[in-house]
Formats: sequence, C-alpha cells, structure tokens
Amino acid sequence: MKKTLEKKSSVSVLSGGVGGAKLVLGLSHLLEPDDFVVIANTGDDFRHLGLKICPDIDTLIYTLANLVDEERGWGLKNETWNFLKSLKRIGGEDWFNLGDSDLAIHIERTRRLAAGETLSVITKDLLTSVGVKYTVLPMTDSTVSTIVETLDGPLAFQHYFVRDRCLPSVRSFHFDGIEKATPNPLIIKQLKNNAYSSVLIAPSNPFVSIDPILSVPTLKKSLLSVKGPRVAVSPIIGGKAIKGPAAKMMNELGVPVNALSIANHYRGFIDGIIIDEIDKDLSTEIEDTGAQVLVTNTVMNSLKDKISLANECMKFIGSFGDQR
Amino acid sequence: MKKTLEKKSSVSVLSGGVGGAKLVLGLSHLLEPDDFVVIANTGDDFRHLGLKICPDIDTLIYTLANLVDEERGWGLKNETWNFLKSLKRIGGEDWFNLGDSDLAIHIERTRRLAAGETLSVITKDLLTSVGVKYTVLPMTDSTVSTIVETLDGPLAFQHYFVRDRCLPSVRSFHFDGIEKATPNPLIIKQLKNNAYSSVLIAPSNPFVSIDPILSVPTLKKSLLSVKGPRVAVSPIIGGKAIKGPAAKMMNELGVPVNALSIANHYRGFIDGIIIDEIDKDLSTEIEDTGAQVLVTNTVMNSLKDKISLANECMKFIGSFGDQR
Repeated sequence: MKKTLEKKSSVSVLSGGVGGAKLVLGLSHLLEPDDFVVIANTGDDFRHLGLKICPDIDTLIYTLANLVDEERGWGLKNETWNFLKSLKRIGGEDWFNLGDSDLAIHIERTRRLAAGETLSVITKDLLTSVGVKYTVLPMTDSTVSTIVETLDGPLAFQHYFVRDRCLPSVRSFHFDGIEKATPNPLIIKQLKNNAYSSVLIAPSNPFVSIDPILSVPTLKKSLLSVKGPRVAVSPIIGGKAIKGPAAKMMNELGVPVNALSIANHYRGFIDGIIIDEIDKDLSTEIEDTGAQVLVTNTVMNSLKDKISLANECMKFIGSFGDQR
Repeated sequence: MKKTLEKKSSVSVLSGGVGGAKLVLGLSHLLEPDDFVVIANTGDDFRHLGLKICPDIDTLIYTLANLVDEERGWGLKNETWNFLKSLKRIGGEDWFNLGDSDLAIHIERTRRLAAGETLSVITKDLLTSVGVKYTVLPMTDSTVSTIVETLDGPLAFQHYFVRDRCLPSVRSFHFDGIEKATPNPLIIKQLKNNAYSSVLIAPSNPFVSIDPILSVPTLKKSLLSVKGPRVAVSPIIGGKAIKGPAAKMMNELGVPVNALSIANHYRGFIDGIIIDEIDKDLSTEIEDTGAQVLVTNTVMNSLKDKISLANECMKFIGSFGDQR
C-alpha cells in the first residue's frame, strides 16, 4: 500500500533555474529519488565561446549537489574568476560569467555533445558524478532557443538576461526551433507509464522558464494526461519577483504584476496554485479562474523554508485526492 | 647602411617550447621586432576536451609577454587550477595541465578556428593582445600531429609527453598529416624576399620540436636558400637535456647523448653549432662534421643568461660574414 501511496503523490516538477531549483532542493529533502522528476527548461541554453551552456540544468545540478553559491543562487561556491580575467586580457567576450570551476561542466558537456551523446544522458551522468540521485530531464534533446522580442529588436535570451541586464523592454517571446523539437523521450515514457501522477510548476518565470517546456510539441498534452492534479507556485509575491525579470516583463506586457495573472497565465492547465500569505486577498479572484488556492509562506530563504514550501506543495497535491 | 646591416643579421628562429622560448626571450631584449621571426613547431598541437591546444606557441607567447611561470617554463604565472579539480570531480580527463587563466587562450583560439580563421592570424592577434610586437609564425596552418613510436605502440605526442611522462621507450617519430601540410605562406614569402637572412635553431628537442618544422614540405628547401648562415644551439649539455626527453630519446635511439650527435643530426643543414663550455672537448670532432663551433655558456637560468646566449648567437651568425 505504501508504494501505491507514494506513486499517488509522485510528481513531475517543471523548473527553470534559481527559484525552481530552491523548491527542488526542498523536495529532495522530503522525497525519495523515485518520487519526483524535474523537467528542466533548456530554452536558456546557448553557445558561447564555442561552449554549450545550459544555465537552468547547471543550477539544478549544483543546487541538488549542495555545490551552488547560495548567495548568487547560481554557479559554484568558492568560485574563482581567473579565466574571465585572462579572456578579457586577450580581447575575448567576457560578459557572461563563467567561473573557473564552472567551466568544467561546460567543456565536458560540449565535448560529449560533439561526440554525439544526448543532453539527457550527459545530464544524468553529471548528476551521478556529483552524487545526486534525483533525476533532472532536459525538456528536449533538440536545440531550442528562447528569443526575447524587445523594443530594441530580438535578443537571444542570455544576451537579454545577462549582457543587457534585462534592460530592453519586452514585447513577446518565441522559442526558436520549438516546432521541430521533440520532447525528451524519457519524459513521455514516464508520463505514459503514469510514473509521476501529478505536475508541479516551480516558482520560475512563466514566460521564459515554464512556457518553453509547455511549448515543446506534445509535451503539454502528455502533462494534461496525468491522473493527479497540476499545481503551480506563484513566482510573484506581493507584486514582485524574488529574482529575475518576471515582474518587469509582466509590467512591460501590460499584465498586472500579481499572482492572479500567474493563475490566468496557466489557466486551463493548472488545478491549483500556491500563493504567498501577502497575496491572500487575491484568493477569491484566483479561485474564479478555476484554480484552487493554497496560501502559505512561499519565500525561500533558508533550507527550512525550501523544505517547508516543498511540504506544502506535496500536501496541496495530496489534498486533491481522487477528485480529478 | 644601418638598415642593410640589420637585415644582414636578421634571423628566422626555429623553436619548440620552453628551451627555445628562453632564447627567443633573450633575442627580444637585443633585437627589434623586424630583426627576427620565430617559426614555431605545431607538431605538439592537439585537441583535448574539444579544445585546440598549441603548447609551443603558447609558451612562446607567454614567455615573450613576461606572463610565463618561470619555474615551470610553461603556463601562466600566478595560475590557479580550479577548473582541473572541478573536471576531475565530474569524471573528466584531467591528465593534461590546463590552468584557469590559461584556458582563455585555448577557448578563444578554438572558437576562432571553428569560425574559419587560421592559426597564423589568431597567433598574431594573441601576441598583439598581450603587448608583444615580435612575430611568431606557426610552421603551418595545416594540422600536423607528432606521433611517438614507442615499444608500447604509437602515442600522440602529449599522451607520450604529459600523460605517460615520457616513460615509454622511443623507437621513431612521424608527423601525421605532414605530407599534405603546406608551410605557413608568410614564412615562405619572407624567405623569398630575403627578409631574414640567417637561420637559428633554438636549443629545442631535435626530434619532436625542430624535425617537424624541417619536415613541412618545401620549408627546409626555403630555409636552405637563405643567404646567411644556419646555426644551431645544442640542447644537449654535458650529456643531459636541460628540460624534456631529448637525452632519454637519444639514449633509446642508440645515439650518443652529446652535442656531436646534435651536429650530426643537423648535418648538411647547419653551418655552425653553439655548444656549452662543458662540451668544448667535442669541438674538433664536431668541426669534422662540417659545422663551425662556438663554445660558450648555453645554460639559461637568468634573463642575463638568455640575453647573453642570444648575443653569442647573433655574434656567431655575424662571424660568418660573406663566406657563404
């Protein structure tokens, strides 16, 4: 019976980088490796200096391995930056932060991709190599590139995000290559086998972290076929995003910067949404969108916060019972 | 008249890595950028972790820019090694020493080669970027790979040299790709224009540093057409090599480990050889090979030593006058 119960609350977590990784870390302290799988955004991935860089996957790996620099939320702790200094000296492009230790993952992955291995296999091996038993599946092994359409013209995501520090005003997004992308076959296989019965959207940027995942052909449909509930955690808390440009983007897109807009964004896909206590007054309006609401603390500063929110997520998912 | 005189003593220096770079540094303290050109061995170059690495060119660049780690003779001073530690953690190949700062040159060069630029152009830009006005010309822009035939089988040079620490016993060498290699067109152009009237073989390994250069089709012939003398500095001093496996190789090849063997190795190509004071008793025998001999201190520990040997080389070259 225990196994059935576990399977009942098993979950596919859709995640981008820093915010999502925090919740995923919380989940890893509550659940066994078989209990959840992370479906990671790869729209942020890009080639830089000839290296294939997968920022969200790396943040997930480093976070799960307790190697992440907690203050920044990305990259490795105790990092050094001598490569970048040296690159600058010889006139190279130094706007993207590549730490000395961090380079290993980029160089090794680039080498293996060039040898014909898939991002999925490489990601699995990287997780194993740093002692992580949890599963992170790239949304696709195809190349998909998030393009931010701005008033200054189209920008590849990392150029918008890092080089231009999110300053250009956003009009829309598109995911280059998405039409031809095939979902990671492991994800589809697991969803078909009902290996993970529910879906949890981490508090990641809806436009550039979650939408790319949901835009991979057939993937959304597969996620809509799970037996259990689909719930999201709002990345907007009291009108702000904890990290990243989500709030700024919503503002520029003319969408009210609040959890209601997040619920509307995922309308028709989610059965429930977790919002912060500061936003509890929005509950009724959000429920009118068709999503059940759980109000709790969603700010994840300490590890305790992360585990606590993860626990709330799992309880919320469990609360739907057989009603779907 | 000064210009004519300068041109008369201008020199093409054939060089490998550490030992050659020391003499080249000495020359740079004596001569103007137009007075000499370094023709660098690229047989040691290889692809490692997807990166194109040119050890001899890098040693020359770092040495001329006063960035080299003087104790090691290669790589950058104040180097850190966090990339390698991190690479080891994720199970990557960590036998080749790639420092954090050093990585910049490999990544930037690999990127530019992939974009279709030549090694010659990239090398020139790298020298300029670190403030070096002297010229280092790769012997070829083609790919040539030195293979060491050992009793354990054939080994790519860096595998023999670094990974296996020169332990396997050497039988012969060959330079993969040499038949199809074309000499760096700038070298041929300059030799045709008599831009450099003499040739100086630096105290580099004759088998794996100088022979690859002399084996590039037509290059030796072009070097034989210069108006001035061709002289070598013996890398063997008192039966030993200052650095590297030259002495061990000679031993395994059944060649007496002394400066006479070096003179014999270059017989027919050189007009003179510079040997160390410790080897002065070999002078008569060496002169019997047809090469004039200059005896001087050839050990280059201090910068003063390097300049002093460079000065001896230029004086020796000048001493041939119009006799050729």
